[in-house]
Amino acid sequence: MSSHFADDSLTLHTDLYQINMAETYWEDRIHNRKAIFELYFRKIPFGNGYGIFAGLERVIQFIEQFRFSASDIAYLRDELNYKEDFLDYLSTLTFTGSIRSLEEGELVFGNEPIMRIEAPLAQAQLIETALLNIINYQTLIATKAARIKEVVGEETAMEFGTRRAHEMDAAIWGARAAYIGGFQSTSNTRAGKKFGMPVSGTHAHALVQAYKDEYTAFHKYARRHRNCVFLVDTYDTLKSGIPNAIRVAKELGDQINFIGIRLDSGDLAYLSKEARKMLDEAGFHDVKIIASNDLDEYTILHLKGQGAKIDVWGVGTKLITAYEQAALGAVYKLVSIEDEAGKMADTIKISGNPEKVTTPGLKRVYRIINKKFNKSEGDYIALEFENPQEEERLKMFHPIHTYIKKYISDFEARELHKDIFLDGKRVYSLPSLPDIQLFAKENLSLLWDEYRRSLHPEEYPVDLSQKCWDNKMELINSIKEKLKKT
Amino acid sequence: MSSHFADDSLTLHTDLYQINMAETYWEDRIHNRKAIFELYFRKIPFGNGYGIFAGLERVIQFIEQFRFSASDIAYLRDELNYKEDFLDYLSTLTFTGSIRSLEEGELVFGNEPIMRIEAPLAQAQLIETALLNIINYQTLIATKAARIKEVVGEETAMEFGTRRAHEMDAAIWGARAAYIGGFQSTSNTRAGKKFGMPVSGTHAHALVQAYKDEYTAFHKYARRHRNCVFLVDTYDTLKSGIPNAIRVAKELGDQINFIGIRLDSGDLAYLSKEARKMLDEAGFHDVKIIASNDLDEYTILHLKGQGAKIDVWGVGTKLITAYEQAALGAVYKLVSIEDEAGKMADTIKISGNPEKVTTPGLKRVYRIINKKFNKSEGDYIALEFENPQEEERLKMFHPIHTYIKKYISDFEARELHKDIFLDGKRVYSLPSLPDIQLFAKENLSLLWDEYRRSLHPEEYPVDLSQKCWDNKMELINSIKEKLKKT
Repeated sequence: MSSHFADDSLTLHTDLYQINMAETYWEDRIHNRKAIFELYFRKIPFGNGYGIFAGLERVIQFIEQFRFSASDIAYLRDELNYKEDFLDYLSTLTFTGSIRSLEEGELVFGNEPIMRIEAPLAQAQLIETALLNIINYQTLIATKAARIKEVVGEETAMEFGTRRAHEMDAAIWGARAAYIGGFQSTSNTRAGKKFGMPVSGTHAHALVQAYKDEYTAFHKYARRHRNCVFLVDTYDTLKSGIPNAIRVAKELGDQINFIGIRLDSGDLAYLSKEARKMLDEAGFHDVKIIASNDLDEYTILHLKGQGAKIDVWGVGTKLITAYEQAALGAVYKLVSIEDEAGKMADTIKISGNPEKVTTPGLKRVYRIINKKFNKSEGDYIALEFENPQEEERLKMFHPIHTYIKKYISDFEARELHKDIFLDGKRVYSLPSLPDIQLFAKENLSLLWDEYRRSLHPEEYPVDLSQKCWDNKMELINSIKEKLKKT
Repeated sequence: MSSHFADDSLTLHTDLYQINMAETYWEDRIHNRKAIFELYFRKIPFGNGYGIFAGLERVIQFIEQFRFSASDIAYLRDELNYKEDFLDYLSTLTFTGSIRSLEEGELVFGNEPIMRIEAPLAQAQLIETALLNIINYQTLIATKAARIKEVVGEETAMEFGTRRAHEMDAAIWGARAAYIGGFQSTSNTRAGKKFGMPVSGTHAHALVQAYKDEYTAFHKYARRHRNCVFLVDTYDTLKSGIPNAIRVAKELGDQINFIGIRLDSGDLAYLSKEARKMLDEAGFHDVKIIASNDLDEYTILHLKGQGAKIDVWGVGTKLITAYEQAALGAVYKLVSIEDEAGKMADTIKISGNPEKVTTPGLKRVYRIINKKFNKSEGDYIALEFENPQEEERLKMFHPIHTYIKKYISDFEARELHKDIFLDGKRVYSLPSLPDIQLFAKENLSLLWDEYRRSLHPEEYPVDLSQKCWDNKMELINSIKEKLKKT
């Protein structure tokens, strides 16, 4: 069996190479040099027009509890052979840096910093893996949820995916991320307890099989549960399930609230239309039809296109695993570091692929909102000391295809990052979960429709200021010069 | 912020409907009727020829700790409005049933029970969601790992995926599952500590960027780390990275073990061949070339086909998320239940799709091993009281296309399930993780090559005994009769 440690910490939740690098810096006494890392992804997942950021709560937890426990240190000493001098340093380490971040529920786009970490070099390195692990997953799911909710519209969307999630943390943090993206509830009671979010659920096929027939099963279920949703497809939806549900509801009358029926197999378009007729004919006009079975934004769109009479959509696998694209590739790149003289020097990672070249320097991110329409014209990344709001006419140009440009006036430049930690101290309070959901919804309303379309949306501009762009080009050229000389 | 509970338990890690069903059974006083559930998946993931079972350790943990905590009960009362009588029942509940299971590292195929749960009905229902959540993910990853290892062959495979995993549990339990499937190490130090498994890692691009040049960075790294693997692609692999690695290694001579270089971008076939030449010319014939960058079994096969000189394969995203098919759809189906008279009655779930009809009854699973070749001829599912070993010539036939059949003699019928819990008490000890890995390897050697091919393998037979098949048909017919009458 695996070991259990009473003092288990998440601080070891990192890649070994981070500890090796921290050791090198420490040995070389540069571990406390100030370093600036940015965390961002290059491409929005699912070919979507936007991403929804989630993961900040878990990151805050991780940072606040960042400390190698006694058993962590013992493991590093006994199993990985780190030496005592370095372990002494690790054993008292806490996070003393500053973090600026998007708020959860904020829209995020490719090549735009989600977080900016300013911290002693070794610390910034040691937290990288956990931050990426958290943010990659939660942002992926919040984005997928928002994408599905876009198709579901004002109808209800419920998250059902625990059994297919990638182990337990994914089930609960995924449920929370789905809620941020616009889902109304989860089926997971542990998530309900932990996050104070709505939970929903009815019964499964096993209940129907546990009784001698479906009618008896529904009757027994209704005896205890005043609010009844019957799962009608254990034997035959139209011939058995719906007639039995109607029969039980009529017999029990006011003793129950017959809220809905659930379809979990078969052709949901056809069955839901037939079900609606049967329910209406029986006088149950308000009874809802809930559907599930491998749903995602594509099937939902098609079912709606065929006039399916579905009121509530239960989504499991395709949401909680982001099945279509099961990973978000956020990266964590060094953009500036204190040099020997104590001055900050910008750094860059070159690549043969222009999309992969990092953007150096200490930067801020602004959303440029057209005041006339209250719609966003794009995001704008500027160097720390710049203030785009001071511009009369803001020039926005594509950071790779620079001939694509536009000028904006009468705009609000809304800065997107908030201070989360300042010198190791948390200075930010998380909003409530419903407020985060609302914030995401309001942010989405800033987007023109062409960015919200689920198929082939327009590309939302994420531009660099002229100064930021110039700084990048200069650094590229200086590195190329150096390489030529060697 | 979310709530933290000192007495947090995983028992609430279930779908709400399980609690609702348990309540119905309890209200109706049938909650303690003995029920038999089977957990299985219908199709092997990735179009692979076999699956590798993983997840048992975590299931054992979950079952042993199954108990609603005080804060769980308070939540169910205060937020979900369950009534006191039912909560009294839940608050003292522990798992008192029996579980038989495949061992971790065992081969598993579609429509073959991974686990058999015999327990009081309500208990069996309450544990379903967590069992599926655990087994679906861990089996998916162990299978993917084995599939990748099949292509890697005797070379080394390392798991690198934490940053792309679906939150923290997936990172560590996925690392363990990958090891079961044949990977040699993980990069995650928390997994290393918890599971006592090998960890590996070198340094990242950030280390190179943190110094004024690559040569200095390598030199500093080598100062502390006797075993050196240099990441050579920060600026330019062939012009800068490898020459700097060689220069540092020559300068330091015996002060370090120059173990390897790591390529993380660019054309790995071309770069590895060039790198090999450069290293050989410099006299470093034993220095290994480690490659990573979105690898999976397909890229590895193609790189090998192009004669890439890669000795060690680092696999991240595509392994830890099972990217190609990010969910395994195991189900948990009631196959038998105690009736009012205290007799076990088999149950079935009918479906329009023949593949989805469940197989009723209490059953055992055997692997039929041809003694002459020591190869497996298929798996054989029989009713509890049958003993296939007693047959002179065993008839094996396809459970849907029954005309496909063969007769086997001179065989060993190896029973695959072990008793894990008997009446709530654990009776099984988990082997060590290396032993589980070895067990998987030995099991794979029982398969003919045609089942191990990664593209279009032959379908491995999973057959029902004649009695088991007859029992299923009888039950289908009796249900159809009943439906006709209503």
